[in-house]
Amino acid sequence: MEKPELNLKMLEEMIQIGDRRGVEALLETLTAPQTARSISRLDEPLRIALLRLLSSDDAADLIEELPGFQAATLIEEMEPRNAASIVEKMESADRADVLGVLKEDEANAILDEMAPEQAASARHLMAYPPDTAGGLMITEYMAFGEKSTVGDVVAKLRAQSERFADYQVQYVYVVSARGVLKGVLRLRDILLAKGAAPVESVMIRSPLSVPVTADLDDLRHVFQQYGFVAIPVVDGEKKLLGVIRRAAVEAAAGEEAQQSFLKISGIVGGEEVRTLPLFQRSSRRLSWLSVNIILNVISASVIALYQETLAAVIALAVFLPIISDMSGCSGNQAVAVSIRELTLGLVTPRELFRVLRKELSVGLINGVVLGLLLSVVALLWRGNPYLGLVVGGALALNTLVAASLGGLLPLMLKRVGMDSAIASGPILTTVTDMCGFFLVLRFATYLLPYLT
Amino acid sequence: MEKPELNLKMLEEMIQIGDRRGVEALLETLTAPQTARSISRLDEPLRIALLRLLSSDDAADLIEELPGFQAATLIEEMEPRNAASIVEKMESADRADVLGVLKEDEANAILDEMAPEQAASARHLMAYPPDTAGGLMITEYMAFGEKSTVGDVVAKLRAQSERFADYQVQYVYVVSARGVLKGVLRLRDILLAKGAAPVESVMIRSPLSVPVTADLDDLRHVFQQYGFVAIPVVDGEKKLLGVIRRAAVEAAAGEEAQQSFLKISGIVGGEEVRTLPLFQRSSRRLSWLSVNIILNVISASVIALYQETLAAVIALAVFLPIISDMSGCSGNQAVAVSIRELTLGLVTPRELFRVLRKELSVGLINGVVLGLLLSVVALLWRGNPYLGLVVGGALALNTLVAASLGGLLPLMLKRVGMDSAIASGPILTTVTDMCGFFLVLRFATYLLPYLT
Repeated sequence: MEKPELNLKMLEEMIQIGDRRGVEALLETLTAPQTARSISRLDEPLRIALLRLLSSDDAADLIEELPGFQAATLIEEMEPRNAASIVEKMESADRADVLGVLKEDEANAILDEMAPEQAASARHLMAYPPDTAGGLMITEYMAFGEKSTVGDVVAKLRAQSERFADYQVQYVYVVSARGVLKGVLRLRDILLAKGAAPVESVMIRSPLSVPVTADLDDLRHVFQQYGFVAIPVVDGEKKLLGVIRRAAVEAAAGEEAQQSFLKISGIVGGEEVRTLPLFQRSSRRLSWLSVNIILNVISASVIALYQETLAAVIALAVFLPIISDMSGCSGNQAVAVSIRELTLGLVTPRELFRVLRKELSVGLINGVVLGLLLSVVALLWRGNPYLGLVVGGALALNTLVAASLGGLLPLMLKRVGMDSAIASGPILTTVTDMCGFFLVLRFATYLLPYLT
Repeated sequence: MEKPELNLKMLEEMIQIGDRRGVEALLETLTAPQTARSISRLDEPLRIALLRLLSSDDAADLIEELPGFQAATLIEEMEPRNAASIVEKMESADRADVLGVLKEDEANAILDEMAPEQAASARHLMAYPPDTAGGLMITEYMAFGEKSTVGDVVAKLRAQSERFADYQVQYVYVVSARGVLKGVLRLRDILLAKGAAPVESVMIRSPLSVPVTADLDDLRHVFQQYGFVAIPVVDGEKKLLGVIRRAAVEAAAGEEAQQSFLKISGIVGGEEVRTLPLFQRSSRRLSWLSVNIILNVISASVIALYQETLAAVIALAVFLPIISDMSGCSGNQAVAVSIRELTLGLVTPRELFRVLRKELSVGLINGVVLGLLLSVVALLWRGNPYLGLVVGGALALNTLVAASLGGLLPLMLKRVGMDSAIASGPILTTVTDMCGFFLVLRFATYLLPYLT
């Protein structure tokens, strides 16, 4: 079994006595999550000492292994000069990500300490929105003029074999004098060609490329459709800007799914890990909870309108939370299916009628079944079939409402550009609570003579 | 804008008149999600006709583009003989996935129609659990004996350039006579070496490999730690079995996050899309809902024990659903953070005390804030400070309970091997509802003289 506590004590001692070799050897044995856990458990001064102890290259490798928010925290804690020397050794896309997460003045302080050329390139990448081709691409690629020969390419590959090895290059690009992408050479094409052959004769002409503005959905679809490991990224004039790798797109898509999962559970305004300061954790969670408590008070105010009915049939108070919770469950199922279908592209945001039709039928069946179940519970408990009719009927109708609304909400929110993972839940439960409370208490008021 | 309706009509007509060229050209213009959507909107006979119309190669490409459950449905609908001819053209990992999803007799019917060697290899891959190195690896790789030369490798690559191109091979493997993995050759090493050089002199010795039993967490960690595009998969005796690619691991991890998202929203027992039969959709959702309604009845029965208190202070009925819903929200936030930290490896399932400590402090702050808010609402509405004390105090205490329990549940469920995405929600809300109802009504019973 893993023993992070043990590693941690050894690591702390080694950092304290400045045992660089020992620290390097120890970090080597840890998996990425173990590293992340160890770093998160070190006190701030020791974390800084650790990064100072390592070479910039090793420190950059260490930071690249950590989840994004943790990497940013580490960089923030360092002096800008030290941070710059480490950030310079990172891969272009990771570097832009980490700097992009920092506050503007902190990022600028680090950029000012970097080599001017590197800083300019980092600023350039940081300007692209994170989950677009521009934000995910790397700028470590090799491009050759149209008139080059295969021999030229091999010579340069040989000369730069170090850099080449680091970036897992699989393709080499051919560009015009103006930088316009003309072709792609695969390593295997180079391998199988004669040295004197012009690259033009071997390259794939008018290769597939993606615009720098392509968003994550576009990128996922392109990589789903084509088997390539990497695709060149171009601007509006087809000039080569960078390379987007399949693994970066898959990782970003996985991250997006994780974020949806967090957001639908009420973790909004940024990722939370338990090493964040207490106040930040509680205030982020509260920002979400306080919106919800207001919405809850609004929907519960429907109950306040029917206090006389409730006073006459106190048993109804037992069923109100059940109807609220069950409608929420039915609605959330439909929300999840819609979000999933939108992600897979199986439904477009305009197909409201199709989704409504599909959810109405499921909502009807499930509403009838759940309504009957609840009626039976009410009947067994109180022996009054009218009470069963009231609570069962209200649950049946409200399940229909919840499934339909839950199915439609993600489509409607997407059309107006809102984040359905954040907004669907609160809107759904507020509407279904109000509607559910109203139905039970309205029905009960009609049938009051039979309930008392 | 996309116009799937238009494409669909054209596609239907082309299939009906058997216009193979037209269908191929049309499919070529569609993105993967558009293809998936179009296929899902075709009637079953037309779907079958479409697959018959295409060449096996094109049909295999089409099926590889679709989400797994949709691919399996298509294969199921076909005659085993036709299905076999298409499945044979699929990539080994995709083929095993699709066959693995089918019912056993259906999969066997197709395997029986396949070439014996291919069927044996597919059965072999299907035997590995899906989210392990064995389940995700491909068997399309090239291996050479230790005594081969770089020239041998180049000659074989040239001879098999078609197969080579299809599988995006980046490495070539060197094995002993018994099949034990001895080294890895990168394309660039081959490119930069002399033809007469023995592969042993160029290869990376004792290369990184993963055991065939490695699970998705292990694989994700290995790829996080090392920059490789693909890693060889070996058995207990270090014999080479296949190759696992980074993109396959990233895709499986993304899929897992999507599944957690669906499960936490109550879509269990398999993926749901709205093209599934109505009865299947409603019964799957009901299986989850009916467990929940029973749990809800159990927790609401706490209210039934305090009907006299409720009858005396009918205003309490307004607050019960608020306290139930808010505690659920606070608990779900903590559940999401724990699931996320477990995924990232930032916490181990045994660190219960650490999580409890972290959640108690957040729960205390948030409980006090939310409790005060609700007290103020109660005070403004009824003008009775004791009512505020009862509902505010109960919400404060119950928020503490919900945050602590929510934080601990995923760790405890992981330790006993249960799926926390499915089980956390129902357990959490049942406990917090019971506890919340009890606290409000118990406090109210104590303070009854001041509330009426």
